[in-house]
Amino acid sequence: MADFAAPLARLIDEFKRLPGIGQKSAQRIAFHVMRASRDEAERLAQTIMDVKDRLRICVQCNNISDAELCQYCTNPDRDQSMVCVVEDPNNIVGVEVTRQFNGVYHVLGGALSPLRGIGPDQLKIKNLIERIGRGEVREVIVATNPTVEGEATAVYLSKLLKPLGMKVTRIAMGVPVGSDLEFADEVTMWKAMEGRREI
Amino acid sequence: MADFAAPLARLIDEFKRLPGIGQKSAQRIAFHVMRASRDEAERLAQTIMDVKDRLRICVQCNNISDAELCQYCTNPDRDQSMVCVVEDPNNIVGVEVTRQFNGVYHVLGGALSPLRGIGPDQLKIKNLIERIGRGEVREVIVATNPTVEGEATAVYLSKLLKPLGMKVTRIAMGVPVGSDLEFADEVTMWKAMEGRREI
Repeated sequence: MADFAAPLARLIDEFKRLPGIGQKSAQRIAFHVMRASRDEAERLAQTIMDVKDRLRICVQCNNISDAELCQYCTNPDRDQSMVCVVEDPNNIVGVEVTRQFNGVYHVLGGALSPLRGIGPDQLKIKNLIERIGRGEVREVIVATNPTVEGEATAVYLSKLLKPLGMKVTRIAMGVPVGSDLEFADEVTMWKAMEGRREI
Repeated sequence: MADFAAPLARLIDEFKRLPGIGQKSAQRIAFHVMRASRDEAERLAQTIMDVKDRLRICVQCNNISDAELCQYCTNPDRDQSMVCVVEDPNNIVGVEVTRQFNGVYHVLGGALSPLRGIGPDQLKIKNLIERIGRGEVREVIVATNPTVEGEATAVYLSKLLKPLGMKVTRIAMGVPVGSDLEFADEVTMWKAMEGRREI
């Protein structure tokens, strides 16, 4: 392998630790940073530290926030009675890009996984119950991942919340739009058949 | 688009400026940094600044270095009489990965490009001439890019250095190994025919 000057080699190593960045991309980015102005490099370094220093967790929904409550919980234009439950803060992005959901969120911080020792106590379910207890919530949409763990979590939440008189729904599973049925796996295809609707 | 907390949105923007990083990758990396420990984030930020603060240019070959002379120029195991001329420091990586070249380098800092106003005076040719003047160099291998600009630079260097009694060579152009001839463009194919060797 090529020898880089030590600080450059270290930066390439650092970038390689980031998700989706291999040796070649890391080199390309490190060379880019090296060629950038000192101001630009400083802004990047500072922004990295800001994310660690200025962000915290919304006390109501556990989303990432720069204040006590996140931008969804404090937004008067959002319907506070519809709560979309997701595993992680980044799953919110996936829902938001649809521009179809105008409710709020609740981040569990994972999904039930006995194999990895994650039980209900490891998930942030307590403040969801409290939130429902305050009587604002009409519907809980469970948007955990379409995996075994995500499904188990959805079933658990449904059993927990329905006795409280809550409407609990689950996002639809089926064949992705724009895909070819030829490439659909059997479980997805089965979910698509099972979830069929009259047209 | 999803609203991110301000520090996170800024970090996503910063990562999007880096080469080869789009919106989705930037989000993924930013979330990764956010989840990483403060120590890890600090190390990344510090390494970025180190690259700006600790690196300089080798006074002999213009490669990136953390000392006055780079690791190739000071390496007693490298053949100082073979100088491989490249456009940019990152082109050295491409030569080094072959593990076949044991000489040293000279970085021009670009290639001749009248359209972009880059003439011989904008390239670091002066210290190459000085280096040759000291009499250590036997052969100059021009490994500028196989582009119009790279070729023009190679021809220019050849005309400049040959009168000094220097052996000037150019890397071979032809069809890349492992490729299919069907996909070779006409210029590459022509170069491959022209550069044919007896077997």
